[in-house]
Amino acid sequence: MLAKALMAKRNELGITPQHEDFSAWYNELVLRAELADRGPVRGTMVMRPYGYRIWELIQSELDARIKATGHDNAYFPLFIPESYLKREAEHVEGFAPELAVVTHAGGEELEEALVVRPTSETVIGEMFARWISSYRDLPLLINQWSNVVRWEMRPRLFLRTTEFLWQEGHTAHASEEEALAEVRTALGFYEEVVRGVAAIPAVPGEKTASERFAGAVSTLTLEALARDGRAIQAATSHYLGQNFSRAFDINFTSAQGVQELCYTTSWGLSTRIVGNVIMTHGDDKGLVLPPGVAPYQVVVVPIGREGDLDAVMEAADALSARLSAAGVRVRVDRRTHLSPGFKFNEWELRGVPVRLELGPRDLAAGVVTLADRLSEEKEQRPLDTVAGEMPGRLAEFQQRLLARAERYRDEHTALADDREQMAAAVAEGFASVLHCGRAECEDEIQEHTKATPRCVPFAAREENGSCAWCGQPAAYGRRVLFARAY
Amino acid sequence: MLAKALMAKRNELGITPQHEDFSAWYNELVLRAELADRGPVRGTMVMRPYGYRIWELIQSELDARIKATGHDNAYFPLFIPESYLKREAEHVEGFAPELAVVTHAGGEELEEALVVRPTSETVIGEMFARWISSYRDLPLLINQWSNVVRWEMRPRLFLRTTEFLWQEGHTAHASEEEALAEVRTALGFYEEVVRGVAAIPAVPGEKTASERFAGAVSTLTLEALARDGRAIQAATSHYLGQNFSRAFDINFTSAQGVQELCYTTSWGLSTRIVGNVIMTHGDDKGLVLPPGVAPYQVVVVPIGREGDLDAVMEAADALSARLSAAGVRVRVDRRTHLSPGFKFNEWELRGVPVRLELGPRDLAAGVVTLADRLSEEKEQRPLDTVAGEMPGRLAEFQQRLLARAERYRDEHTALADDREQMAAAVAEGFASVLHCGRAECEDEIQEHTKATPRCVPFAAREENGSCAWCGQPAAYGRRVLFARAY
Repeated sequence: MLAKALMAKRNELGITPQHEDFSAWYNELVLRAELADRGPVRGTMVMRPYGYRIWELIQSELDARIKATGHDNAYFPLFIPESYLKREAEHVEGFAPELAVVTHAGGEELEEALVVRPTSETVIGEMFARWISSYRDLPLLINQWSNVVRWEMRPRLFLRTTEFLWQEGHTAHASEEEALAEVRTALGFYEEVVRGVAAIPAVPGEKTASERFAGAVSTLTLEALARDGRAIQAATSHYLGQNFSRAFDINFTSAQGVQELCYTTSWGLSTRIVGNVIMTHGDDKGLVLPPGVAPYQVVVVPIGREGDLDAVMEAADALSARLSAAGVRVRVDRRTHLSPGFKFNEWELRGVPVRLELGPRDLAAGVVTLADRLSEEKEQRPLDTVAGEMPGRLAEFQQRLLARAERYRDEHTALADDREQMAAAVAEGFASVLHCGRAECEDEIQEHTKATPRCVPFAAREENGSCAWCGQPAAYGRRVLFARAY
Repeated sequence: MLAKALMAKRNELGITPQHEDFSAWYNELVLRAELADRGPVRGTMVMRPYGYRIWELIQSELDARIKATGHDNAYFPLFIPESYLKREAEHVEGFAPELAVVTHAGGEELEEALVVRPTSETVIGEMFARWISSYRDLPLLINQWSNVVRWEMRPRLFLRTTEFLWQEGHTAHASEEEALAEVRTALGFYEEVVRGVAAIPAVPGEKTASERFAGAVSTLTLEALARDGRAIQAATSHYLGQNFSRAFDINFTSAQGVQELCYTTSWGLSTRIVGNVIMTHGDDKGLVLPPGVAPYQVVVVPIGREGDLDAVMEAADALSARLSAAGVRVRVDRRTHLSPGFKFNEWELRGVPVRLELGPRDLAAGVVTLADRLSEEKEQRPLDTVAGEMPGRLAEFQQRLLARAERYRDEHTALADDREQMAAAVAEGFASVLHCGRAECEDEIQEHTKATPRCVPFAAREENGSCAWCGQPAAYGRRVLFARAY
């Protein structure tokens, strides 16, 4: 009975605190903030307007950068002949267990089963082979916004869903050098969006062999840290060498008249990033949204009884118009059947950076009461000038949020030089270790600590020595980050 | 041999003329202009960058209007339990023959087969039922941008593809009146985009019973006319009454405390619109793109030999920068291995509204040579001022194109009052007829003329009399448009 009473109280006022059960906190928050809902088919997700809008904002920032660096959007089919996947041996091995397969269509059984794309290297490879004939056709720089399907055994909203939305870039080049530069370019705009827009201080680095994309020569990644100390991959960028060119005959005639295979890349960022935002910034009161991705950067809550309400509502609308004109995404909460207190809690739960409360007394005094999502204090600001100061205040909020997340990440990254230190570090966040690079050693580490290698950070200085876990000579020439990961 | 020589000539310089074989003209143009390509699976399509960009431009115009009228974007799952479709009898009957079915996933056979969405009324209905409880939750105004799959027996690029992209709006309301207004609102923004942006003078009207969406009470439509006299549906908006509310229990408690079923709507516009643009405006030289949807509104072709080329290229870049600053989408054709003549033909084929040719002599004279896609003549314009005059010129081009299409439509719409007149009219375009509304009569008309009822235009004046085909009393109280249709 006590548990039930506690739950009822929580249902009304709050969510499970992070330290008590991070996973419950996350699931409750996603549903209660109306970011997403579970779909009827196991593992599928419905992105509700509030969650989808976060994705749209990230999408538009990323799309602008993808286009500015010379890539064109295109669209390739959802269905891929099953045989295509088998042409690249590692690729099919990696994806086979996760495939959804269409066997019937138009009322008949199909001659060849169709795979619902888990990623599009194969079908795009086939088309690239048709389109590319001369060095003049290169580089070919294509991006696609689409849905993909990977059958998930342990689904979790946003982080692992059977279907998700993403963009996948696919490019073909005449030289290895150009393709490697492309992989870095992609990681560059991912960093601009992940760090610059979503305020997530993800660590850029290279994946170790065991964590590479199936079929890639190398994989670059941005690795973020959730507030429970687990890593979340934010985006990846793959150098595919000539693996897919060989499998799909993507070749070109060089300026010298020689037939050569292309060098290809692929890179992606998905709706998982919304989960990343939630887990990087959220607190016990709910979401905290960076202004860069907040559907509403400011919410105006008009407060008043019957007689006052018209004047207050009018002032709220005028304020909202000034905020919009200043380039701020604003919403006026016009609901009259809910108390101000309920609305305050709800907008805190939904992570709106700044709340402006406007009542008859504020109006009479020519002020508005401002509540900042990161601060316990409220302050009063002049009604005349608050709109003009808002862009600066939101930029400052964004910086504070990034700084807080950086501090969290740094405080949860520990050098570890033996098993005990390593186990302690990965219980809290990233362990920065020298590592032998052997698959057997990785397996042992995972078995004992649940941690896996997340990346070899680009920023790590050169360092050699012996593996923190097994004592054998370290590989990579620098430290590797290990963590338990989503 | 002659045929082959002719074909070789065409491959180099042109495409099959429209009057010779409209279907061949269309297919060659789509491929040659690099709008789209056939995917590896029969009936699927790859939208190449040029074609996809047209879609993106339409999408952004439409999305802005959808949002401005209070709708929120969201995203629902691709996979729908097979049982859901069966809950609305007419709906499943309409879509069953076109379904693609996933039977296996994650390496196992599924307990219940999953349908790949052909449209989302069912899965969205299920979610609406979860989300709506009170009249305060209404209206619920949702839109989704997504891919859908309908297995096509006679696929044609853009017009009928096994998978296509679209938006589908889904709304729920407390009253029939509100829902009917919503259906009109949707048709309103479709008209703004189809007519205002794509310059397609589609006829707004209501579908007759036989052509309604499967499960709808009524369907509004925009019916356009291709340059071979066949109709193409540009967008539809459906009033679903309580059919889906009943099937999915979408109910709410009214302000009076009574439990009631919602009234729902759905409305969609798809990538078929790109085919519509091609067929409405194209000519024997290729595409003609309305500036509203043209990836490049202006192409600058620098012309020069080795010694001159640097200066010309520099001037072309400066001109391009001025055009961009004036809000014009512009591309400089920097390819040096192709002749100016080849490029002129190519940009004509690809339908760019205005071409600016810039050679050393133009440069010396301070002019640029302007070729308008709708005109045979070239003219010279001052290099200094041509960028500034371009927005006005493009707006005028857009008007000319719309007026031309309207003229075509009007010249290909004929009143018909008997069988002979009707058969003659539908061989050329729309037949405007009094019609009895009987399914048997429609079948007979289709058998004899291949024509079907396209819509009852809103603009048609009241008129009664007897059916042009069978002589029985006319229904609808006004004339109906019949045509052969895509």
